[in-house]
Amino acid sequence: MQKATLSILGCGSALPTKKNFPSSQMLELRDKQYLIDCGEGTQIRMRQMGLKTNRLGHIFISHLHGDHCFGLIGLISTFGMLNRTADLHIHAQPDLEKMLKPQLLYFCADLSFNVIFHSINTRKNELIFEDRSVQVFSIPLKHRVPCCGFLFEEKPRDRHIIREMIDFYHIPTWRIPKIKQGEDFVTEEGEIIPNNQLTTAGELPRRYAYCSDTAYSEKIIPIIEGVDCLYHEATFLEEEMIRSNQTEHSTARQAAEIAKKANVKKLIIGHYSARYNNQNELLTEAKSVFENTILGEDMTVYEI
Amino acid sequence: MQKATLSILGCGSALPTKKNFPSSQMLELRDKQYLIDCGEGTQIRMRQMGLKTNRLGHIFISHLHGDHCFGLIGLISTFGMLNRTADLHIHAQPDLEKMLKPQLLYFCADLSFNVIFHSINTRKNELIFEDRSVQVFSIPLKHRVPCCGFLFEEKPRDRHIIREMIDFYHIPTWRIPKIKQGEDFVTEEGEIIPNNQLTTAGELPRRYAYCSDTAYSEKIIPIIEGVDCLYHEATFLEEEMIRSNQTEHSTARQAAEIAKKANVKKLIIGHYSARYNNQNELLTEAKSVFENTILGEDMTVYEI
Repeated sequence: MQKATLSILGCGSALPTKKNFPSSQMLELRDKQYLIDCGEGTQIRMRQMGLKTNRLGHIFISHLHGDHCFGLIGLISTFGMLNRTADLHIHAQPDLEKMLKPQLLYFCADLSFNVIFHSINTRKNELIFEDRSVQVFSIPLKHRVPCCGFLFEEKPRDRHIIREMIDFYHIPTWRIPKIKQGEDFVTEEGEIIPNNQLTTAGELPRRYAYCSDTAYSEKIIPIIEGVDCLYHEATFLEEEMIRSNQTEHSTARQAAEIAKKANVKKLIIGHYSARYNNQNELLTEAKSVFENTILGEDMTVYEI
Repeated sequence: MQKATLSILGCGSALPTKKNFPSSQMLELRDKQYLIDCGEGTQIRMRQMGLKTNRLGHIFISHLHGDHCFGLIGLISTFGMLNRTADLHIHAQPDLEKMLKPQLLYFCADLSFNVIFHSINTRKNELIFEDRSVQVFSIPLKHRVPCCGFLFEEKPRDRHIIREMIDFYHIPTWRIPKIKQGEDFVTEEGEIIPNNQLTTAGELPRRYAYCSDTAYSEKIIPIIEGVDCLYHEATFLEEEMIRSNQTEHSTARQAAEIAKKANVKKLIIGHYSARYNNQNELLTEAKSVFENTILGEDMTVYEI
C-alpha cells in the first residue's frame, strides 16, 4: 500500500523560534499533496526539505491569524516564477480572498496559473472538498477568530481479488475493476458468484485530522473518532492554563485528553509557545494521558 | 571607536534556497539599527541570529518586489505581539503603504505602536532621512520597477580634545563639547585659542552603500565614491549576461567594476540567483576585477 505521509514544515506558534517556523504542513495521500496552513517561511521550509510541489493543487487555511497564512503570497509568487500552470485552489474563509487578491494583482500580475478561492464556513462540519480518492471535511474549532480544522479521509479502497477465483471462474480481465469495487460475478451459465467469495477486504481508508488553533473542545470528538493520526495543538503546559484559556489555545494534557477520548491511533502535538526551549516537557505531559503521542518537529516526515 | 556592523539576514534573490533567504540586512551604526529590505523570513533570521531589535526605528525598502518586502507584515505583527511601543518608520515608495495598510488593519488591529510611512522618490539622489548621527540618501537604480539603493553616511564625528591643552588653558568642563565640535576657546583674558591647537581630527565618518536590485549603472558611481563598504547585487555570472540584461540585474563582474570605478574600500556581493549552488564562482569572477570582494552570506556579521 502506498504510504501516506505528513511533512511538518512548521509547528511553532505565533512567534517563530530558532527551531520552529509558524504553522504549515504537507499531507501526501494517494499521490496527491495537500498543504495545510501556510505561515511565513513555508516555501523556505519546502526548499530546505527538498519538497517538490508538483502534485499540490489544494491549500487549506484554518484561520486568518498571520502565523497560519503570511506565507501564501510568497509561495504563490514563487509558483509564478517557476511557471506553474495548474490551477491552485485555496480553501479558507472569504476574508482571505479580500486580503490576498490586491496583493496578487500588484505583486503577481502575470501569473501563469489561476488562483481559485473557495469559501469555508468554519462553524459547520461539512464536506468542503473531494477528489477521486480523498474527502476533506471541516472541523469547527474554538478560537479567538473563526477557525476550523480539517479531516482528510481516504475514499474506500478497492477490495483485493483472490487470484485463484479468477482462474476458477474464468473471469475476464475487463470485469475485474468492478469486482474490486464490490460487484458480484455472473457466470456464462447464469450462476451468481457473490463478491465475498471472490475478494477480501481492501485496506481500511486512512484518516488524518488537523486541529489547530483551538481551545479544548469535546465537540470535535465524534468527528475525529478513531482517526489514524491526529495533529492537535499543544501551545502550553498545564501550568499555563490561565494564559491558555485566555488565548483559546490548548495545553499538552488537553490535546492528549482529546486524543484519548476520541480513540485516535496516534497523536502529534505542535504549535508550541516560543517560551518552551525544552519541548520534552510538553511531550511528557501529553504522554501521561495518551501514551502514543509524538512531539511534532519542523522538517520531519511522519507516516500516517 | 564603536563598531559599525552589517548583519546579512538574507542575500538570496527571488527564489529562496537552502542557504539563502530573500533580501534583508541590518545595519548597526552609532548605537542605532537600520533595517534594509525585508524579504520573507526576515524575522525568522533575526531569531536565528539572536538579533534584538530594540534600537530599530527605521526600515528602508528598495523596491516593491516580493523578495524585498514580503517579510514586513510578519515582522510588524510580531513587534505587536512583543508589545513594542516605539514608532516604526518605513521608508519606501508610496505603493507600499497602499498594499500594507489593509493588512495591518486586518491582522494587526490593536498595534501597540505607530507604523509611519515615508514616501521615497526612487528617481532622485536626495536626503531621505537623518538623525543625530546618520544621514541616509537614496541612490537611483536601474531595475524593472522603481528602485533605489541607500547610502548611509555618518555625520562628522567629534574632534579629539588634547588633554594637556585643557589643563594648560584651564578650560572649564562645560566648554568641552563645543570645542570638540570645532569651536575656538576664548580665555578669561580675551585671548582666542584656535580650535586646531586644542584638538585633533576625529575619526572619518563611515559610509555604507546598498545597491540592490540593479542593472549595471555608472550613474551611481559619483554617489557611492569611496564608501567604506558597498553591497552590490551580483545575481548572475558573466556567462548569463543576456538573462542578466533582460531582468535588469548585474553580473558579479559588473558589481566589481562598479566597486573599482567608485574606489570603494570593500565590496560585498549578494542577491545570488538560485541556480548557483557554488557561489564561489561568483566571488572568483568579481575578485578578478576588484580584489577586496567578499561573498555575502546569510547569518553573517560584517564590519563596515
